[in-house]
Order: sequence, then C-alpha cells, then structure tokens
Amino acid sequence: MSRNNDVLAANDAFYQAFAAGDYMAMDGIWADTLPVSCIHPGWPPVRGRDKVMQTWRGILANPPRPAIQAMEAEATEMGDFALVVCFEVIGNIYLSASNLFTRDGDLWRLVHHQSGETSKSPKILKEQSS
Amino acid sequence: MSRNNDVLAANDAFYQAFAAGDYMAMDGIWADTLPVSCIHPGWPPVRGRDKVMQTWRGILANPPRPAIQAMEAEATEMGDFALVVCFEVIGNIYLSASNLFTRDGDLWRLVHHQSGETSKSPKILKEQSS
Repeated sequence: MSRNNDVLAANDAFYQAFAAGDYMAMDGIWADTLPVSCIHPGWPPVRGRDKVMQTWRGILANPPRPAIQAMEAEATEMGDFALVVCFEVIGNIYLSASNLFTRDGDLWRLVHHQSGETSKSPKILKEQSS
Repeated sequence: MSRNNDVLAANDAFYQAFAAGDYMAMDGIWADTLPVSCIHPGWPPVRGRDKVMQTWRGILANPPRPAIQAMEAEATEMGDFALVVCFEVIGNIYLSASNLFTRDGDLWRLVHHQSGETSKSPKILKEQSS
C-alpha cells in the first residue's frame, strides 16, 4: 500500500511539473535507464528520450490554463513497473491518461505517457455538479 | 530480438482478434494474472477484467470496417513487461496506441491498452500517397 502511495506521489509530481511549466522537474521525472515514449492528445507516437523531452519543452513553455489536475488516479504496481490510470482535468476539458513508471533506485520514473480527450468527467465532478 | 518478435506477434494477435470481431481470441489475449485496464478512444478509463472484457464484447459485436490494422509497431521489452507503441489505421482514420503486455509462461498477454485519434498518418502511408 505504501508502495502504491509512492507511485501516486510520482504521478502527482508529473502533473505538478506539468501545471507549473517546470521543465527541469519534468526532465527529472522521465526515466533515463530505459527507452521512453509519449503520445500527447491528438499526436502520433513520439519515441526516444530526446524527442519526448523536446515535445515537453514546447508544451511547458506554454502550459495549459486552467492548470492541469489529475483525478481518480489508481496505481497498479507490478514488480519494477507501475501503471497509473487517471483522468486529467483542464477546466472543463477531460482527458483519460496512462502513465507507466519504472523503479529506479528509490524513485518511480516515467517511461511512457498517453493522454486523450474524453467526453466523460470524473465521478467526483459529476457529484459536485448534481 | 526474437523476444521483441514475440511481443510484436502478440500485438498482431490483438489486432487480428479486433479486426475479426473474435471475442474468444480477445479474451485469451488479455492477462488474467494481473489487474487490467483499458482506455478506448474518447472513453473514460475502464478498470478490471470483467468490465474491460464487457467493453470488448460490445465493440467486437460490431468491429470497425474497414478492418483495423496496426502500423509502425515498435516493442520495448523490459523484463516481464513489454510496451508496444503503434499507429492504428481504420480506412482513413488514424489512431495512436499503447499496448502493455506481461509475460505469462510462454505468452505475452495484454494488461493495458489505450488508443486515441490523431490527425497524423503513419509515414509509410504518406510515402505511398506522395
């Protein structure tokens, strides 16, 4: 359970770096021990750390406002890997996301991220608005 | 290298089951040794094997036509896990997909799938049309 909390903390750190437009933090969050890849919403696959970080450099120069928030994140730890599946919320835009982490010493670092828009909102927001 | 070929064969089997609308094959492709999850294009996250397979039962009752094809699939094997990132092509609709597999004896079985639409086509199709 504490391990899952560590994974969710790493997931939170990813979204904090994203919301803050903090490229240095984002760079530290991505693994450098394994090949990484990323599929941004509406994008083709981006493969390789240099290219992935180049996309983040562009995105973080102008991060989304309102700031992105992760909601209903759930982690599945599987040995040296962990998958977090969550909603992303940017104002009234909702996305579904997959974040795959690998264990790197005491850290969990990101090896793959995909996000895509969905018309469904997280349950907690539905409950607040009903 | 042969291992990567095994992973890509498992990825092909997933898309063959999808294209054929073969629910029994699809059921065998998904892992039953770990929690599974799935994010269909435009959907919220679906968690848990029963719910995930229920979504496939619905989708495979009426599989997309023209049949779905995977293109430019690349596999990264990481111990007992492997990630395949690829394009999906359904006629002139293009999607980007992430497929996470786990080793289960001699098989690679799917633990997570996300797919989302992209406006970009695979390079091989661009070359054919230019």
